[in-house]
Amino acid sequence: MMTSVLHAQQIIQLFKKRDIKNIIISPGSRNAPLTISFSQDSFFNCYSIVDERCAGHFAMGIAQQLQEPTVLLCTSGSALLNYYPAVAEAYYSEIPLIVLSADRPPHKIDIGDGQTIRQKHVFANHILFDTQLEMITRSDQKEYLITNERQLNKAINTAISKHGPVHINVPFEEPLYNTVEQPSMDVKVMDVLKDETTEIPAAFYENWNNSKRKLVILSTLNPPVFEKEDIDRLTADGSVLVMSEVSSNIVHENIVWGIDTLIAPIEFDDDQIAALQPDMVVTIGGMIVSKKIKQYLRRFETNIHYHIGKRRAYDTFFKLAAHIKIAPRKWLHSLPVQTQPSTYQEQWLHHFKDYLSKRPAYFEKIGWSDMKVFELLFEHLPDDIVLQLGNSSTIRYAQLFKMNATHRIFSNRGTSGIDGCTSTAIGAAVGSGMPTVLITGDLSFFYDSNGLWNNYIPKNFKIILINNSGGGIFRILPGEKQEVYFSTYFETTHHLDASHLCAMHGFGYTKIDEEFAFAKAYQQFIHTNTAPQLLEIQTPREINDKILLDYFKFLR
Amino acid sequence: MMTSVLHAQQIIQLFKKRDIKNIIISPGSRNAPLTISFSQDSFFNCYSIVDERCAGHFAMGIAQQLQEPTVLLCTSGSALLNYYPAVAEAYYSEIPLIVLSADRPPHKIDIGDGQTIRQKHVFANHILFDTQLEMITRSDQKEYLITNERQLNKAINTAISKHGPVHINVPFEEPLYNTVEQPSMDVKVMDVLKDETTEIPAAFYENWNNSKRKLVILSTLNPPVFEKEDIDRLTADGSVLVMSEVSSNIVHENIVWGIDTLIAPIEFDDDQIAALQPDMVVTIGGMIVSKKIKQYLRRFETNIHYHIGKRRAYDTFFKLAAHIKIAPRKWLHSLPVQTQPSTYQEQWLHHFKDYLSKRPAYFEKIGWSDMKVFELLFEHLPDDIVLQLGNSSTIRYAQLFKMNATHRIFSNRGTSGIDGCTSTAIGAAVGSGMPTVLITGDLSFFYDSNGLWNNYIPKNFKIILINNSGGGIFRILPGEKQEVYFSTYFETTHHLDASHLCAMHGFGYTKIDEEFAFAKAYQQFIHTNTAPQLLEIQTPREINDKILLDYFKFLR
Repeated sequence: MMTSVLHAQQIIQLFKKRDIKNIIISPGSRNAPLTISFSQDSFFNCYSIVDERCAGHFAMGIAQQLQEPTVLLCTSGSALLNYYPAVAEAYYSEIPLIVLSADRPPHKIDIGDGQTIRQKHVFANHILFDTQLEMITRSDQKEYLITNERQLNKAINTAISKHGPVHINVPFEEPLYNTVEQPSMDVKVMDVLKDETTEIPAAFYENWNNSKRKLVILSTLNPPVFEKEDIDRLTADGSVLVMSEVSSNIVHENIVWGIDTLIAPIEFDDDQIAALQPDMVVTIGGMIVSKKIKQYLRRFETNIHYHIGKRRAYDTFFKLAAHIKIAPRKWLHSLPVQTQPSTYQEQWLHHFKDYLSKRPAYFEKIGWSDMKVFELLFEHLPDDIVLQLGNSSTIRYAQLFKMNATHRIFSNRGTSGIDGCTSTAIGAAVGSGMPTVLITGDLSFFYDSNGLWNNYIPKNFKIILINNSGGGIFRILPGEKQEVYFSTYFETTHHLDASHLCAMHGFGYTKIDEEFAFAKAYQQFIHTNTAPQLLEIQTPREINDKILLDYFKFLR
Repeated sequence: MMTSVLHAQQIIQLFKKRDIKNIIISPGSRNAPLTISFSQDSFFNCYSIVDERCAGHFAMGIAQQLQEPTVLLCTSGSALLNYYPAVAEAYYSEIPLIVLSADRPPHKIDIGDGQTIRQKHVFANHILFDTQLEMITRSDQKEYLITNERQLNKAINTAISKHGPVHINVPFEEPLYNTVEQPSMDVKVMDVLKDETTEIPAAFYENWNNSKRKLVILSTLNPPVFEKEDIDRLTADGSVLVMSEVSSNIVHENIVWGIDTLIAPIEFDDDQIAALQPDMVVTIGGMIVSKKIKQYLRRFETNIHYHIGKRRAYDTFFKLAAHIKIAPRKWLHSLPVQTQPSTYQEQWLHHFKDYLSKRPAYFEKIGWSDMKVFELLFEHLPDDIVLQLGNSSTIRYAQLFKMNATHRIFSNRGTSGIDGCTSTAIGAAVGSGMPTVLITGDLSFFYDSNGLWNNYIPKNFKIILINNSGGGIFRILPGEKQEVYFSTYFETTHHLDASHLCAMHGFGYTKIDEEFAFAKAYQQFIHTNTAPQLLEIQTPREINDKILLDYFKFLR
């Protein structure tokens, strides 16, 4: 059974041919032709989520894991606008999403009909492609049929080959609920695009061979692009220093995995800063989380930056020489094994390991705090999980700890918003089918509280909520913490906990507020799989910033 | 105390001169120069709300009541996108909002910095005016100073004179937290616009005088535009039939206040339909809620439609002859007192009153249901309240009941979204300072659950939640209610109640699910003013549509 509406049939048919299966549907009437068709066809996996802001992030979580387009379907009006935070995140995180919005026919826009806005081009600033389908009422409207076929193909091809969100606006006129047994037409698959690749320019090799200090930064990489042997080979060259971020999903003994831990202690020491300065920089992966490395590299005028990989390149340090669109592994294996004799890598790895050897003494002396909690968590998290990190303090703390090589780590670092961390994590749990743990702060958790209003949460899904009663990030930033306005308008303190939301949405709930209670609560939390679980860890709001800043001082 | 950032000082100075006082702040660091300045100056009423989607609707509720611009302030990144549902609602409801978004400087966009998106023109489809300020670092940058002054004045003037949202994007570079005692410059108030008015064309009077059947439709009117005497005068002409909607805030014995109640019973009776057909239609007010009147008037080809008033006109019936931009009262008093002899008004008022006389018998026989609950509520609501109606079944049911002349009634009918009904109602309670009651359905209530995360809710604020365990509106629409997909993807049934959210956010809570319990629970609910209260009324999901549709059949 399928809608009788012809241009809706085209969508259904083409999605099937392109193996696009996962459809997140929010309720509405205008979208009935598509809702009926998707939900009545066992080819599709349909999910019903009421709040479109959550639906958008949930879809993104699925697509993040499967690396294939996930579909959002909503009715006309402001429903569509609620997808925008997820659309922008997908745009910058390069995650394929197909937004299908039902609309009234064009002549019914701006004449005062209900739930009607200007949907065409509404995501213009953050969309790879958008189109509005033609309404087709008779199967002999060949030009319309072919126009839609072309636009639909273009939308799908763009989402896949350019890795990001596309928007298809679909006008429907009543009747909306009529069905037929079989579709009236076939659709063609057109112009599937290949990834664009570029040759590695000669200038790159020239720079590479002449540089005694080469810094390679690995940021968000999903799926992982290197094996251990690749990093062995890359770091066999002593002039190559590799730094990685927590979302790089690469663990290797020759990598500086704690960028801030390395840089913070030396950032006011001019000699050290000069000694670290690379002759060239290579970046691989998405957005860089560490502000310190960005600020550090922006200070120099002379060095050269190449970005390697088929995804987007950002001129983060204002010195991008070229974006080389090639698979990172292919690039790596094209490199000469040894270039300039250099102690660059050795010197800084030594430096880094020296810091690491000092760390335990610091963790010994600190009390119950965010920092302490992260230490405990990274020591105890089980192997083989998908680990989702919330914005914004969570990911910053996580960057200070060594990742477990069996973890797959993700965070919404496209727009770095707090608006959909929970929904994304739940989508990822559904998409990956793997045990998934979200670590999140209190503001991001309560912001996306409707994320829990979701009938598809796996029973082994787990949330660790670090509740410091406000936006802890603001205590770490500059500004007068003692002023009366600070706690209200920056930190936005509150007295909420997650117990009520857990009771409402069927989550098991445990709360602790001291180290003594951690071990027992954690064990129960991690081993209970009869329902999703939330472990709330309350930390004292006012000391967290001092403990974090003292950490960097201690390492000096 | 005030920020040292010069272009932020310009904003603060001009807002003070223009008496723009109400500032809704969401937390962030990039917006620190403005947050510090607004919150440190007792001239401004500042509100801190974390979830920008709720903040947007809360601001709109304040502006809806005060009819003056309310300011939204957020940090950079996806924060801004969460305002979009409220911005679109304000655009179509013609409510003045000023969105201030902090941003990075232009050269830091799309280079991989955190919380950075393309904010410029991001609301292009639904904004009256948008601008990006120049960053000013020295007070001798005269051209920049004057450019900003002009753009800020234009933004404020547009929000006021064109009644709707404007967006000012404000780039800031670090340092963000520095302050000074006094601002470094003054700003000028420029070009305050007068409302545009048009003369009433001669053709209008010609049509008016020649028409034996003139239909005047009063839709959303805030503030109310007519006194009782005005309607006396208008309806002294027997050829004028006045219909009103619940949000018109006009009550008069000569008005058909239940449009659907009049039309539904005759819509399949060709003779009656022809007898009701007007020679001309005049609309006054915002969007029309009743689908039946729209569908009815679209059926005819010959008649003529004028829209009266200074706000936007919509060609809702595809027969708009002219938009006459004049105060409705002025228009009314320009009309000849008697035109064509006609029984048009008398006939249909009689018809309507006849239906009304049959209603009690119907209400006698129906059981516990949405319809029954609305009857009880409209009988019992106290006088002199601001009544906020949620979308979408709530407002449709409310249209079937006579409004209390002491109520001021509002509903988000610009985009008719369910996404911010609670936040808007709370904003209205704060803005009006009046006892405020929100009647809402379950999907809209749970959608905006973060609306309750608000430290400014007056203790006498009240929510009546009619919970039929899903989107009741979908049962009223066409489609196969028995199909398995219906309850999941259309009605989206759930088992939630509001008890946990009430406990979480300090609301008093009472739940009833039968008529017997209503009187006592209602009395306690309405008379408890020590904390905001929520009365949850559970109705049986599956019979509501039948009772509503039978109502129209019964009247035939």
